[in-house]
Amino acid sequence: MPAPEMKNPIFVQGLPGFGNVGKIAAYLLTKFSGAKPFAELYSPSFPDYVTVSSKGICHLPRYEFYAAPMEKNDFVIMTGDTQPSFDDVVAHYELCGETLDFVQKIGCNFIVTLGGAPAKEEKSQVYVAATTHKLALEFMERGAVIYSKSRVVGATGLMLGLAKERGLDGVCFLGSTTGFKADRGAGFSVFKFLMKALGNEVKEGL
Amino acid sequence: MPAPEMKNPIFVQGLPGFGNVGKIAAYLLTKFSGAKPFAELYSPSFPDYVTVSSKGICHLPRYEFYAAPMEKNDFVIMTGDTQPSFDDVVAHYELCGETLDFVQKIGCNFIVTLGGAPAKEEKSQVYVAATTHKLALEFMERGAVIYSKSRVVGATGLMLGLAKERGLDGVCFLGSTTGFKADRGAGFSVFKFLMKALGNEVKEGL
Amino acid sequence: MPAPEMKNPIFVQGLPGFGNVGKIAAYLLTKFSGAKPFAELYSPSFPDYVTVSSKGICHLPRYEFYAAPMEKNDFVIMTGDTQPSFDDVVAHYELCGETLDFVQKIGCNFIVTLGGAPAKEEKSQVYVAATTHKLALEFMERGAVIYSKSRVVGATGLMLGLAKERGLDGVCFLGSTTGFKADRGAGFSVFKFLMKALGNEVKEGL
Amino acid sequence: MPAPEMKNPIFVQGLPGFGNVGKIAAYLLTKFSGAKPFAELYSPSFPDYVTVSSKGICHLPRYEFYAAPMEKNDFVIMTGDTQPSFDDVVAHYELCGETLDFVQKIGCNFIVTLGGAPAKEEKSQVYVAATTHKLALEFMERGAVIYSKSRVVGATGLMLGLAKERGLDGVCFLGSTTGFKADRGAGFSVFKFLMKALGNEVKEGL
Repeated sequence: MPAPEMKNPIFVQGLPGFGNVGKIAAYLLTKFSGAKPFAELYSPSFPDYVTVSSKGICHLPRYEFYAAPMEKNDFVIMTGDTQPSFDDVVAHYELCGETLDFVQKIGCNFIVTLGGAPAKEEKSQVYVAATTHKLALEFMERGAVIYSKSRVVGATGLMLGLAKERGLDGVCFLGSTTGFKADRGAGFSVFKFLMKALGNEVKEGL
Repeated sequence: MPAPEMKNPIFVQGLPGFGNVGKIAAYLLTKFSGAKPFAELYSPSFPDYVTVSSKGICHLPRYEFYAAPMEKNDFVIMTGDTQPSFDDVVAHYELCGETLDFVQKIGCNFIVTLGGAPAKEEKSQVYVAATTHKLALEFMERGAVIYSKSRVVGATGLMLGLAKERGLDGVCFLGSTTGFKADRGAGFSVFKFLMKALGNEVKEGL
Repeated sequence: MPAPEMKNPIFVQGLPGFGNVGKIAAYLLTKFSGAKPFAELYSPSFPDYVTVSSKGICHLPRYEFYAAPMEKNDFVIMTGDTQPSFDDVVAHYELCGETLDFVQKIGCNFIVTLGGAPAKEEKSQVYVAATTHKLALEFMERGAVIYSKSRVVGATGLMLGLAKERGLDGVCFLGSTTGFKADRGAGFSVFKFLMKALGNEVKEGL
Repeated sequence: MPAPEMKNPIFVQGLPGFGNVGKIAAYLLTKFSGAKPFAELYSPSFPDYVTVSSKGICHLPRYEFYAAPMEKNDFVIMTGDTQPSFDDVVAHYELCGETLDFVQKIGCNFIVTLGGAPAKEEKSQVYVAATTHKLALEFMERGAVIYSKSRVVGATGLMLGLAKERGLDGVCFLGSTTGFKADRGAGFSVFKFLMKALGNEVKEGL
């Protein structure tokens, strides 16, 4: 499939992880925006199984790329059913690098990663970390809390760190969650913040 | 050894695994068909030991390829005494890839993998997963149950998933087993289903 | 950043490890000497997370190189916030090799590694191991105890062993520590010994 | 160091392992034969530490090659202070392969590996496995017991298996041991059997 024509698209990544917040937020984003899949990424670093659908069709673990036309900047959304094994650090770096190569080639210069963060207080919160102090402040003004003196693990953090080393800008939005199970509430909070903060309307009552 | 002349051979893989079902079914197949070994595959991803025969001869772990002339399509059967370590995911992908390269070169365009599946009920069952819905249905009509919403792990699943990505067709037959020990009954069920479903006679009483 | 002009600089390495002695000693050295950072090393073998500063800025794990002008030989100091995973032995060899390539290119021919050693007695001690017996004796005369019949693990030992295989000379200074927590006292002892032994004054009362 | 001139040398390998039998037997062999070291092998798959001698000199883990002139065929003896990690199967294959490349280049066409085997009975025993049935029988006649239906793990087995795949001949001698500690008795038995079986005298009373 050829990559669709998009103007200055923003790359948005939401993968399985802590509380599954990133994957849920990305899922809501694809549904809300009517995004269309246009590319897949397979890797020998993904787990060695196939999943079988209700129709008996097997498929390998993969990352999927969706094109989403938006009011302001278009989105390229990446989500998937897996991440490499926690042990395989090098695989994490390589997959993030390959993904960046691909999305830079189709014009993405701004990176947004979505994930979960351990809840520190009762109140639900969206945290932000960024490639620059200016960006962190900008999204703080729109309601996020700076994820100060912490670590962002896995692809959610790594993609942003590698993007920064390439001279790209980007942010990471983390929904606070206990992480005990898939946290739809935190996923929805992150989705809503992302839409508002990047200038797209989400009708109330959604 | 040169690969023997075969017409549109079907590739059948049965390796050690859950309940050893796949290996047992492949063993029965080689015996029943009078299959002849014609190739071996060694890999640095196999365990680092040699086995010693009763005659004191050592040999490395390996996959073995047999040529089996059949009434309908000939078979290329692969079996072996090992799989790569569970941890070494990349080795699993690479070995399956090398195997597909090899069997495609000698003319195989249809892939059958054999294995075990955790028994969900008392009744013995053969499950099927496939590269297409049409194929899954076809073997359902011949008596298999669709292995719906499940995972097929290790080479049994991976080989089929990778074959599909290459545009090949194939199926996976899984014999239900408790998996506590080598399950000859489940291995025989899978062998018998494979023979019948692919149009070869197995005399009753076997 | 271009490497600064330095005359026969000595390479000094202090990384996180046992009691964090090496990293603390290297930190004191950079502060005392007013060292300036001039290079960074990133690696896919480092952990897959980013750390977020109090300003919300993320950065990848890395080694940092500082140039320190000294009274006698200048120093190139390397420190960092991580080491590769203990399991990934090959990564340790590769990173040490890359580091040596880099510091040899900018003129370093003498290697000093700093670390901690399990305390064998009450008294605080600085131990020495070296690429030659002559060097070990030389620093013994200046107050260190030979780290006889022992092992130096991780980058602290490996860097010295690899330097020796390249025909370079060097020493390893280890501060005795219980290792239960970051040991500032042991770090300071190693720092002070290093300064004195290499002919640089540290004012008393520091 | 250039490899010394030798006529049809036999390659003998004794590494640390079960009961340390292989390493002890190789050590006795180097001492008895007045063997001279002529080559070293370093590898990033060896552990990431240095050992420090009583003189304070550090050195990396390594394999060492000795040349031993004998009454009949000369020996090239390999021993060392380590093996790659048990997990790193690929490293085991690669190191054995590199070692075979090296010893074939200096003329070795017959491979002897030395190791320990779990004692099955009270009586001390030397077991044999070989690349051919004829060889196994030959050493059985000289007093060894065929190591039937067993596995030889690590470099002791792998080196022989890989040698066989290259068309070389060889044997493996295993001394029975409980393996609880370094077993000098078993090491000496293997050494003595090796000398006698390959036609070299060991004076009684040694």
